[in-house]
Amino acid sequence: MTELDFIAALRALATQPSARGLSDDAAVLEFGTETLILTKDMMVEGVHWLPQQSLADVAWKLVAVNLSDLAAKGAEPVGVMLGYSLATNNAAFLTGLEEALTAFDVPLLGGDTVAVEKSRTFSLTALGRATHTPVPSRSGAQPGDHVWLCGSAGGAMMGFDAVSGLADADERPFTRPTPRLAEGRALAPHVTAMMDVSDGVLLDAWRMAKASGARFAIDSASVPIAAPESRRDEALRWGEDYALLFTAPSGADLPVPATRIGTVMEGGPEPLVLDTKIIDGPEGLGYQH
Amino acid sequence: MTELDFIAALRALATQPSARGLSDDAAVLEFGTETLILTKDMMVEGVHWLPQQSLADVAWKLVAVNLSDLAAKGAEPVGVMLGYSLATNNAAFLTGLEEALTAFDVPLLGGDTVAVEKSRTFSLTALGRATHTPVPSRSGAQPGDHVWLCGSAGGAMMGFDAVSGLADADERPFTRPTPRLAEGRALAPHVTAMMDVSDGVLLDAWRMAKASGARFAIDSASVPIAAPESRRDEALRWGEDYALLFTAPSGADLPVPATRIGTVMEGGPEPLVLDTKIIDGPEGLGYQH
Repeated sequence: MTELDFIAALRALATQPSARGLSDDAAVLEFGTETLILTKDMMVEGVHWLPQQSLADVAWKLVAVNLSDLAAKGAEPVGVMLGYSLATNNAAFLTGLEEALTAFDVPLLGGDTVAVEKSRTFSLTALGRATHTPVPSRSGAQPGDHVWLCGSAGGAMMGFDAVSGLADADERPFTRPTPRLAEGRALAPHVTAMMDVSDGVLLDAWRMAKASGARFAIDSASVPIAAPESRRDEALRWGEDYALLFTAPSGADLPVPATRIGTVMEGGPEPLVLDTKIIDGPEGLGYQH
Repeated sequence: MTELDFIAALRALATQPSARGLSDDAAVLEFGTETLILTKDMMVEGVHWLPQQSLADVAWKLVAVNLSDLAAKGAEPVGVMLGYSLATNNAAFLTGLEEALTAFDVPLLGGDTVAVEKSRTFSLTALGRATHTPVPSRSGAQPGDHVWLCGSAGGAMMGFDAVSGLADADERPFTRPTPRLAEGRALAPHVTAMMDVSDGVLLDAWRMAKASGARFAIDSASVPIAAPESRRDEALRWGEDYALLFTAPSGADLPVPATRIGTVMEGGPEPLVLDTKIIDGPEGLGYQH
């Protein structure tokens, strides 16, 4: 069984339409009088961080990326459950974990630790409470809506280059990303679709358009980037910036600063049009897991 | 920082008294009009299963051990979030996962998958809804209560020996344990303390007594074992049987079959008395993580 087959089979097994094969979308669950939002992201040694990075950054990011999934649902964080591989540098991890929990005001509820010798895996399940229903999904974009970005693209790319010694830039957009929790909550009542940009603006726009059965026309020059103009193309394909990508009706009065980057059109065979060019499949648009 | 220091620091960081340093107790959380129960257990290659075991068994057990934590809280399972290391034998894992989800009637809500090359880690977060409040904890045992076991000890030990080729016994108590969900729900209104036995009857009794500020007098001969009598001492120290250990007032009318194995006494400096012998610390009582 190939990995793609496995993910497809898991997707079939999952009861949540949003589970998307256990990817980075959150689960939405009615629970008593409340709506519960659940998300789980893992970080694996050798895959998700550079050897020179501190585990304090890894811990921070583990919290941040999960909370970013909650932000995209307009959810208020309730707590996190940690899965931790015990080995070296535990103190650094703990420092970053505590910093993130404090910064985002979210409690550690519990979890599990296992001592390991080889490659380490950290996982986190974050729990949130919906602040607005229906909870924003990726599939609600309607023809005529505008496509918006709250945040920018390319900052994490520059930070990655800085950590790698390739650029003189701020490392923090890569090492210490900030989930846009307040913006997500404020936007939730106004959007028709919303997701956090973890794998690149263009790829995530392609995915949202496809999930909505629509076609997005994106104007690449309008996307705000936190990188030199010469690297715009790369910036639009680099992930980990955790901006919020959303669609809203054309007359929407948005409560937070955001930049319009495109328009939703009737669905066609391909879900993305970039600067009037129809994009032929998601390859090359961003980071594919 | 040593592993024990790290776990102590995590415990200090955790807001849930039940988090116990992120061990196998579940978190209890008021959520709207409901009470939410959350638990997270990991299984790591080279630690939690034998090389000759099928990943179908690993998947089953990952679900079962988490649901057993819910059972000890009298909770009804609501769903699970999976963290999965993609490598080989994904199809076997999927088979066991689907079997467990079907057997225990619990949906897969979502999760994350990461392709890895080295040691694999699987994690699961299970979510439950309390059926009775106050939710049973480990710390409520009162002097005069009786100590009970719903289930037996030693079956997993025999199953382990069978898988290892050391005994001619049923493998399934080790490879396919069953969480006692119905029994946990039925018992919840009747108990003063309850936990599932994952690390051995004696060690878990020691822990429950200590958490309750009490002393348990356990009669080792009265513990039901699923192993030859000659291996009784081992059976009481072997974990993974997922029996429910609980305490109840002496006149309690219990709704499910259980065996009385001891009495709760006033707390003393050591929490366990075994066959009138005071036990000097938890060493040698069971499986210590």
